[in-house]
Amino acid sequence: MLIAYSHSEVVLPKFPGGALLTGFYIDRSSHVPIYRQIDTELRRLILEGALAAKQKLPSTRELAMELGVSRITIKSVYEQLVAEGYAQAKTGSGTFISEGLDFETTPKITVPKKNIGLDDVKISTRAASIMSSQASVRYGATAPFRPGVPALDLFPVKLWNKYCLDALNGDERNNLSYGQINGSAALRTSIANHLNDARGVKVDPEQIVVTSGAQQAFVLIAFILLNKQDTVWYEDPGHIAGRDVMQLMGANVAPVPIDSEGIDLDFAKQMHPKPTRIFTTPSHQQPLGTTMSLTRRLALLNYAHENDSWIIEDDYDSEFRYRGRPLPALSALDRERRVFYVGTFSKSMFSAIRIGYVVVPPWLVDTFSKARNLLGQSSSPVIEHALSRFIDDGRLAEHIRKMRRIYRERRDALLDCISTDCADCLVPQKTDAGMHILAHLKNNVDDNLAHRALLDAGIESLPLSVYCIDPFKCSALVLGFSGVPKNRMPKLVRRMSKVLQSISLNQ
Amino acid sequence: MLIAYSHSEVVLPKFPGGALLTGFYIDRSSHVPIYRQIDTELRRLILEGALAAKQKLPSTRELAMELGVSRITIKSVYEQLVAEGYAQAKTGSGTFISEGLDFETTPKITVPKKNIGLDDVKISTRAASIMSSQASVRYGATAPFRPGVPALDLFPVKLWNKYCLDALNGDERNNLSYGQINGSAALRTSIANHLNDARGVKVDPEQIVVTSGAQQAFVLIAFILLNKQDTVWYEDPGHIAGRDVMQLMGANVAPVPIDSEGIDLDFAKQMHPKPTRIFTTPSHQQPLGTTMSLTRRLALLNYAHENDSWIIEDDYDSEFRYRGRPLPALSALDRERRVFYVGTFSKSMFSAIRIGYVVVPPWLVDTFSKARNLLGQSSSPVIEHALSRFIDDGRLAEHIRKMRRIYRERRDALLDCISTDCADCLVPQKTDAGMHILAHLKNNVDDNLAHRALLDAGIESLPLSVYCIDPFKCSALVLGFSGVPKNRMPKLVRRMSKVLQSISLNQ
Repeated sequence: MLIAYSHSEVVLPKFPGGALLTGFYIDRSSHVPIYRQIDTELRRLILEGALAAKQKLPSTRELAMELGVSRITIKSVYEQLVAEGYAQAKTGSGTFISEGLDFETTPKITVPKKNIGLDDVKISTRAASIMSSQASVRYGATAPFRPGVPALDLFPVKLWNKYCLDALNGDERNNLSYGQINGSAALRTSIANHLNDARGVKVDPEQIVVTSGAQQAFVLIAFILLNKQDTVWYEDPGHIAGRDVMQLMGANVAPVPIDSEGIDLDFAKQMHPKPTRIFTTPSHQQPLGTTMSLTRRLALLNYAHENDSWIIEDDYDSEFRYRGRPLPALSALDRERRVFYVGTFSKSMFSAIRIGYVVVPPWLVDTFSKARNLLGQSSSPVIEHALSRFIDDGRLAEHIRKMRRIYRERRDALLDCISTDCADCLVPQKTDAGMHILAHLKNNVDDNLAHRALLDAGIESLPLSVYCIDPFKCSALVLGFSGVPKNRMPKLVRRMSKVLQSISLNQ
Repeated sequence: MLIAYSHSEVVLPKFPGGALLTGFYIDRSSHVPIYRQIDTELRRLILEGALAAKQKLPSTRELAMELGVSRITIKSVYEQLVAEGYAQAKTGSGTFISEGLDFETTPKITVPKKNIGLDDVKISTRAASIMSSQASVRYGATAPFRPGVPALDLFPVKLWNKYCLDALNGDERNNLSYGQINGSAALRTSIANHLNDARGVKVDPEQIVVTSGAQQAFVLIAFILLNKQDTVWYEDPGHIAGRDVMQLMGANVAPVPIDSEGIDLDFAKQMHPKPTRIFTTPSHQQPLGTTMSLTRRLALLNYAHENDSWIIEDDYDSEFRYRGRPLPALSALDRERRVFYVGTFSKSMFSAIRIGYVVVPPWLVDTFSKARNLLGQSSSPVIEHALSRFIDDGRLAEHIRKMRRIYRERRDALLDCISTDCADCLVPQKTDAGMHILAHLKNNVDDNLAHRALLDAGIESLPLSVYCIDPFKCSALVLGFSGVPKNRMPKLVRRMSKVLQSISLNQ
């Protein structure tokens, strides 16, 4: 009775003494158990109406014979269907498809499958704004010159893995339970010590809220500190994803230009008086690279004090300074705890570590905990443990010192290569800090156009315009040098030159 | 000239030929380098006005002698102060504190430190609502009977650590770069296969968005699908943190009671017509334990189709069913892709794994990616890799099968102990699935009161009322049994009985 279509598929023809079971496939080579396959197929036939209400199912003996499986299997399938309400067992007369299941009116049967699209789902205005934002999504590995990518080729991965292994083995069972919502006490203490040593910022470990990267810190801050229509001074050009998340929360993100001393306080006071929050990158302006002067820092703190504004300091790549020692953070000058200090290890260690933190005033710790809990944010206890030890053992400081030397070399190599091979197209701006340079585009080449063309050629610079709120006066590329080995620079810069020259000709 | 206060602290008296340097501490036993200590102290004296504008600093030779350090150290400190603008070097005449730094008006000096409190920071209305929410925050390890905690004592931690180790060693460098924003392709494929085998849900791996737990999935859904004032049908009582996050987004969370077949559709249609979204836990109602009938499932899908509503299915602990096989998910009946299916591994594996997922329609994958990126959500590539292999090797299915047996035993043990030792205070409701039971409190004991008293005694049940939107008709405790070893039950239940009896007497 079975017609074999292949050695693993069978089809049932009209079945004597029971329902019509055509299109009934069993795949004996599948890892899905036979009973599950039969169960799924019967369910499908019921839902599609091929097996109608009140219809009798073949007896367990008959179906078992037909399918070449044990009767117990079929019995178990039928029992499950009965238990779920698909079928009813009548003692002595067999198993029948249930009535009253309203299958007829379910969309699966009577309504042709609509071609449902984005409009049908009515995504929120929030989501619509996300979709229209300029922020690019990092899908997996990055290409050369992506800003903010550290030297992944030189991270001491074997050493780090040893720390992870110790963490895995050290306190096995404890790693299975929920971690501390703000990060482990050990890690918060390590971070507090690191902040004191490296950034001159003195904080109590209790004030530290560990996040999975700086972006999560911005999300928390935006959630907790921003109401709709609140005015936020925001450096323009400035950090992309921080701006997007604040706009998403409905804040009025007010662009403030950068002068030689940092954020232009006079402009901001005049154009956007009474900001409730101020977002700034004083150590190394993102992306222009300016370091805020001491005078400006004090004036900014003073202004914030007088106007009851709160400052968000993003200290993203301050560890890397190639002349003199790193400047202390703005937070180090702040005795009122008006500054929310945001730091991250994705730049000083590696992108995937996904650990950052925000220093908050003591009276807001509980609010941050609750928000973090509600937003489903938490870090891996194993990684927290490993990182804490890595910092305490001086490994982080050692790695940063080493990278400072390497990044200086990489920066110099990039500048050299540009001056040799790409001087027709780019005018780089020298920088004494950070992980990227700004390079102005010659010949009126549009930076978005250049960005897209370079991306097609495997080079991931970012156009200055994506950092801008107001249209910017010049066209430039932000080129991350920290992630690109010196020996790869010449070839990459030549490729870049070729692409930029061809745009310049075609424009 | 040095007056030692302890063997590691020195104080400088009035200093001849230079500024007054009292209160100048150096700690030679500290791991902070001496130059950094001197630098910090000088900075502090400048900012506090102890060293005023135009004042001359001691010469490098003098200060070096006084402090017993090398002159190069002092020179380097002075150079840094000059570089940052704190001081000015005048050739031939020495180093002077800068003028025009506006130190006099900075809050640090002239204004006494205000006692800044919560009111001053003006947290957002969002944050205020978080603070007033009933959701409890999980700080670190949980106490016995916390609902939703799996058997951490029986998780094969050595085996799991081996998978982590393989992941660490396998593709070392790749683990350092950003992972895929939606989770690795390998993990999404493993989850899709698991969903097909265990829950009858057929999805394309592309439709899966990996999150760090179910809560992050709810946050994404709320962000993307909910506008302010949107009506969401929500099971009442129902999932606590899911409700809180939807309310936080400004949605109108409309309570729908549960009857014997699940969410009360007739009530909901009448009271809250035209919901845009519907949140439900069909496999095992959270927390009442009801399994939604097939009839109700079909009616719900049909209603959603006709009214263009979208369903969020939380399938949190469906793997654990102690009679019959687990029912297929609601998603398995849905051919329109109207159901957003949310799953998690914190229940089937261990709390700290922090991996969950949501199945979304193909046309929304990109929106979810962008939102996830903007919200700073991402998982560890190492854990993703380990989990994918753990699933593919059948280890997850094996563990779930084992836990099904263990949890049944633990449930039975808890019911036995209650009937032996706590029958005066609790009337437990038998359940055939999940990780918790509901136990009604006798003698009109208030469940919040009972919860707090038990928590003081180290027992972490949850009161039914925290799950409720509208005040509930009965007082009950939700007791998680899955995390409590059988041999600990008798003692714990006797302790619980003692606490509840004393409340009952004092009430």
